[in-house]
Amino acid sequence: MPRPSGRAGDEMRQVTIEPGFAKHAEGSCLIRFGDTHVLCAASIEERVPPWLRNSGRGWVTAEYGMLPRSTHTRTDREAARGKQSGRTQEIQRLIGRSLRAVTNLEGFGERQIRIDCDVIQADGGTRTASITGAWIALHLAFEKLVEKQAIPAIPLIGHVAAISCGIFGGAPVLDLDYAEDSNAETDGNFVITDGGTLCEIQATAEGTPFTDTEFLELLRLAKKGCAELCEHQRKAIGG
Amino acid sequence: MPRPSGRAGDEMRQVTIEPGFAKHAEGSCLIRFGDTHVLCAASIEERVPPWLRNSGRGWVTAEYGMLPRSTHTRTDREAARGKQSGRTQEIQRLIGRSLRAVTNLEGFGERQIRIDCDVIQADGGTRTASITGAWIALHLAFEKLVEKQAIPAIPLIGHVAAISCGIFGGAPVLDLDYAEDSNAETDGNFVITDGGTLCEIQATAEGTPFTDTEFLELLRLAKKGCAELCEHQRKAIGG
Amino acid sequence: MPRPSGRAGDEMRQVTIEPGFAKHAEGSCLIRFGDTHVLCAASIEERVPPWLRNSGRGWVTAEYGMLPRSTHTRTDREAARGKQSGRTQEIQRLIGRSLRAVTNLEGFGERQIRIDCDVIQADGGTRTASITGAWIALHLAFEKLVEKQAIPAIPLIGHVAAISCGIFGGAPVLDLDYAEDSNAETDGNFVITDGGTLCEIQATAEGTPFTDTEFLELLRLAKKGCAELCEHQRKAIGG
Amino acid sequence: MPRPSGRAGDEMRQVTIEPGFAKHAEGSCLIRFGDTHVLCAASIEERVPPWLRNSGRGWVTAEYGMLPRSTHTRTDREAARGKQSGRTQEIQRLIGRSLRAVTNLEGFGERQIRIDCDVIQADGGTRTASITGAWIALHLAFEKLVEKQAIPAIPLIGHVAAISCGIFGGAPVLDLDYAEDSNAETDGNFVITDGGTLCEIQATAEGTPFTDTEFLELLRLAKKGCAELCEHQRKAIGG
Amino acid sequence: MPRPSGRAGDEMRQVTIEPGFAKHAEGSCLIRFGDTHVLCAASIEERVPPWLRNSGRGWVTAEYGMLPRSTHTRTDREAARGKQSGRTQEIQRLIGRSLRAVTNLEGFGERQIRIDCDVIQADGGTRTASITGAWIALHLAFEKLVEKQAIPAIPLIGHVAAISCGIFGGAPVLDLDYAEDSNAETDGNFVITDGGTLCEIQATAEGTPFTDTEFLELLRLAKKGCAELCEHQRKAIGG
Amino acid sequence: MPRPSGRAGDEMRQVTIEPGFAKHAEGSCLIRFGDTHVLCAASIEERVPPWLRNSGRGWVTAEYGMLPRSTHTRTDREAARGKQSGRTQEIQRLIGRSLRAVTNLEGFGERQIRIDCDVIQADGGTRTASITGAWIALHLAFEKLVEKQAIPAIPLIGHVAAISCGIFGGAPVLDLDYAEDSNAETDGNFVITDGGTLCEIQATAEGTPFTDTEFLELLRLAKKGCAELCEHQRKAIGG
Repeated sequence: MPRPSGRAGDEMRQVTIEPGFAKHAEGSCLIRFGDTHVLCAASIEERVPPWLRNSGRGWVTAEYGMLPRSTHTRTDREAARGKQSGRTQEIQRLIGRSLRAVTNLEGFGERQIRIDCDVIQADGGTRTASITGAWIALHLAFEKLVEKQAIPAIPLIGHVAAISCGIFGGAPVLDLDYAEDSNAETDGNFVITDGGTLCEIQATAEGTPFTDTEFLELLRLAKKGCAELCEHQRKAIGG
Repeated sequence: MPRPSGRAGDEMRQVTIEPGFAKHAEGSCLIRFGDTHVLCAASIEERVPPWLRNSGRGWVTAEYGMLPRSTHTRTDREAARGKQSGRTQEIQRLIGRSLRAVTNLEGFGERQIRIDCDVIQADGGTRTASITGAWIALHLAFEKLVEKQAIPAIPLIGHVAAISCGIFGGAPVLDLDYAEDSNAETDGNFVITDGGTLCEIQATAEGTPFTDTEFLELLRLAKKGCAELCEHQRKAIGG
Repeated sequence: MPRPSGRAGDEMRQVTIEPGFAKHAEGSCLIRFGDTHVLCAASIEERVPPWLRNSGRGWVTAEYGMLPRSTHTRTDREAARGKQSGRTQEIQRLIGRSLRAVTNLEGFGERQIRIDCDVIQADGGTRTASITGAWIALHLAFEKLVEKQAIPAIPLIGHVAAISCGIFGGAPVLDLDYAEDSNAETDGNFVITDGGTLCEIQATAEGTPFTDTEFLELLRLAKKGCAELCEHQRKAIGG
Repeated sequence: MPRPSGRAGDEMRQVTIEPGFAKHAEGSCLIRFGDTHVLCAASIEERVPPWLRNSGRGWVTAEYGMLPRSTHTRTDREAARGKQSGRTQEIQRLIGRSLRAVTNLEGFGERQIRIDCDVIQADGGTRTASITGAWIALHLAFEKLVEKQAIPAIPLIGHVAAISCGIFGGAPVLDLDYAEDSNAETDGNFVITDGGTLCEIQATAEGTPFTDTEFLELLRLAKKGCAELCEHQRKAIGG
Repeated sequence: MPRPSGRAGDEMRQVTIEPGFAKHAEGSCLIRFGDTHVLCAASIEERVPPWLRNSGRGWVTAEYGMLPRSTHTRTDREAARGKQSGRTQEIQRLIGRSLRAVTNLEGFGERQIRIDCDVIQADGGTRTASITGAWIALHLAFEKLVEKQAIPAIPLIGHVAAISCGIFGGAPVLDLDYAEDSNAETDGNFVITDGGTLCEIQATAEGTPFTDTEFLELLRLAKKGCAELCEHQRKAIGG
Repeated sequence: MPRPSGRAGDEMRQVTIEPGFAKHAEGSCLIRFGDTHVLCAASIEERVPPWLRNSGRGWVTAEYGMLPRSTHTRTDREAARGKQSGRTQEIQRLIGRSLRAVTNLEGFGERQIRIDCDVIQADGGTRTASITGAWIALHLAFEKLVEKQAIPAIPLIGHVAAISCGIFGGAPVLDLDYAEDSNAETDGNFVITDGGTLCEIQATAEGTPFTDTEFLELLRLAKKGCAELCEHQRKAIGG
């Protein structure tokens, strides 16, 4: 069964990144995985959450949101409903953990960097685009602190990027778009460093449970995808 | 006292409009007043609020939001705080009223058109850009209904656009940017049709109360500005 | 078309003011515009909001509410619904701004005066009665601070009062009651000082947009109304 | 130890009742127990809560609120805080139960009568004044249904009134005002019919637990007080 | 009319108490009144509410909850609904007051003891089981403070226990189970010390108001029941 | 580095299961993984969520909560805070998905089974104990429907159980307790069927990212653990 987009099984959508998209943010980019567009903006706050006061350590956290009409049919505005959904909270916790896995929290003083990931347009894979773009926003914000001589060096241990994989029509495929995502038998999100080590694996059987063999194939695809994404990140930060 | 931007007193910021910016929405545009960028997206819903059921009439409403880092310093996410601010509610009520003032509510059946106005970047005048762009999104959504032969004609009586004016440094100026807005003695928002009639006037003394004469000068500037904006709208809808 | 109440176009409803109505408040009055009755009560707080700490300045703010059965048919209690409506928030922001426009915020130390405007009975014009009565409550609270020698003089630059005007049955009329308000083509609220200068203008086309000429006639009526209200205020404070 | 007000131990505060105080309500009164003033307003709703649909029975319920500056020092507005306190909920549940104890719920069809009890000024005993006044508002609302021939007779089995008693300075006293209430060793609220039977007893030791003998003396006082209040009710409804 | 359980009118359900049920709590027990099972757990907090800071006094408070399926048919989870019901708030306020009535608040420094009473299974009388069990949890927590030599002695003036009584089928009965509770004409909860003095009385006519004589019979039963409960408490704390 | 509990790396804590623990629930058990105790209770509802009406399909969902003092130090009650945490929502979504992965949703009509998983005592692994126990509660509830002849057969495709694994002190270990969980370098939760296929994998690097090899070792341990848990399930349902 061919992919709706005609892509090969291990082919990602076109990735484009516009660093500095948000004029006011300390670091930002607009990242596009095909028709999925996410604006990632980092804000530096000169204070940490209460449990870190006087610890000498900083914190990195994330918030996530979708514009109401980023989706095929309109999604209610979370601000109007008065609370964030469980899905939103899961995603923003995932983004934060992923970034912290490659950040030296001792390396930028008692500051909090908050990354807002707002989905301007959604076509599957918003959380993986968010993580990949958030890393760039974070890097740019750290650059600003280095430029101002507030910190001596960028406290990032490496890159982190994320991609989805799934079993679609019986075959493992890389970087699911919405048409695939809503029909996949199994759906996984992988957060992987530029060294190929793993920060986070989330795999879910939407229908029939999956086998070890299937899972390992997804993992292989994810590593290929994240390696490509780290390359995009390098270009975006001028590296 | 010259304007921070160097503009003449009756000179607007550069206006650009990208219709169709949001792929999934029935009508949309990204509107820019200088560094103020608002994404306006119209969604057609095949049902009306309870008080209009079986009335044969439709409804037009709006929601408004700002991305957390659209502002100079980060603003808390309303979805995370669990409620919309009074300011947000004022603005979305204003957008809705302004659009309804030029819409024939009998002309599109029992449907609701909801316009989401989301501020991607803020530099003063977000509510006036929202109204001006929302009219385009609404027009495009109505076009879609006409194309589908769901309604016979676009049920808009005319254009509506909005602009701010204020007393800055003692002089009346058109289209305040953030640097002016936060220091103006008087600040007004005007919602005006292409016929030059008035839908809404909101004028506030931030410091010293203002005189009739000053107010009339603001009104004159606003009419000039809205006439220009209607011209931009015409081009955006291919008119 | 005659007014439902039989009043002349430029005739206000009977205004009565009972200063000192709320025994516990530092300043208060019950103000009546015909069948619209609002209890305005000022509370002096010996602390300011966070953004004014150590500024040497005070703050004046307002809250607004309606008793559930102040209205023709019962309105849900906002405390039971768990949030204040957009309308409530708009009104209380308007009352606060109007009072601050005639208050010298440097003149009463780091104190906050909070004015509660609670509608006991509603028949149109609750926000304008609230502003007019709130000024009295504020004046009386400042008198109390002067009496206690906490401040040297009443830090009010002048009076402020408010009135509604509208186009009803094609004609401009002053001080709309509920029967007029719910059928007016255009509806405006004007906040005006005793010197005749303007603090706030809010005018809305409920149906057909209005012309400059119509607006100017509303403004003329509003000035007449507010001048009368300032006279009532003077009597109420024993001036 | 004399009572702060100089009253005898079994002496109530002056009670006054203004029936029909709220112009729009189907039944209402302003009831005063000395400086405690409560506006009670009944609204007839032509539908019952879900669990009574198609039962042929009606329902009586109550809501309670305090104006923010009804109290000695200002109390936060519950609508602004976004929820009703536990105390508010206790009181409104008590008022509803007390009224239902003397109402024939089969006697007025599938209607709900909602009684709003809003404290305009507080000086102790707001819940007992509320119950006593709510009965009058309820009676007047039922009169209106009889007048309209919607129901054949007033479906009230009898009167119900309420009063507080307490141990103050070691002695039992009737109808505590705020000065007593905040210093009483024991505080009780009694809801009693005109036949002298009991609907509700709530007695609480604020300090030392109380004895049976003390409790029985409070009960005796309460019966005397409620008998007087039923007399006031009779006059208020023109009986 | 016999009791559904076959118990005599003055016969309580079987009471069992497992002290130390919650491994992590400073004091705890699982208390059972027949099929009503409540877990009471005391937590010692080294800080008091704001109004007691620098007073040298401590505070005792309680929270109450029911597991969703503790009841015959499932009850919505309060955490999911986003607020605690009025009933929950009434009960937790009652538990707190009852405990404070026998606690010397000067005797354990500026600490707060918070008792969580969570209903594992409900069959009537959850609030009375909660109070009776909470006293044990509180005692055990105080024991822990004495052991650690943080306080010199257990600051409890005596025992407090609670039981319900009601008029069921025309007869006064002790310790209502759910089958009785939902059909009782009158229902009362009594909180009584080991000395037989009264902390709290709450009696409610669910149908016909009740007489003094009936009430006194309920009080007599309650005293008998609480005396037995104090005996159970003594055994549970090894006294 | 030895495990704090002295267990071997692939050794689980003692598992005990008491089926039928909750008297009122249609299916229930108390499941213990060592000192982690979770009460799982299934409620059958004769209606489905709106999106499934008239589909002929049923739904299985879950809610999760922790008693405030189930934890080492007290956790705030979510009902009192007015919302469920992101963690709570993640867990209850996970439990629901896991159960649905082995349930034939066509096999029990338009019913919803809701499983409440309430943590009575916590010592690590509450979500895995919840899933494992929830399956038993679900099975028992289905048995009840079969007994009542409401459905012909139990619509479960197989067992599902869950266990945590992690890298602790550099070594892979099975079934982390709290002491391990709070210090693990990597932490994973695995949801596995009795056939050894995978429903859900969640693995997170708390510190250093992990390698493929490490992950595969965790997966191997998890399979061993879940096989043992399925055996416990079989016994608990009398199979």
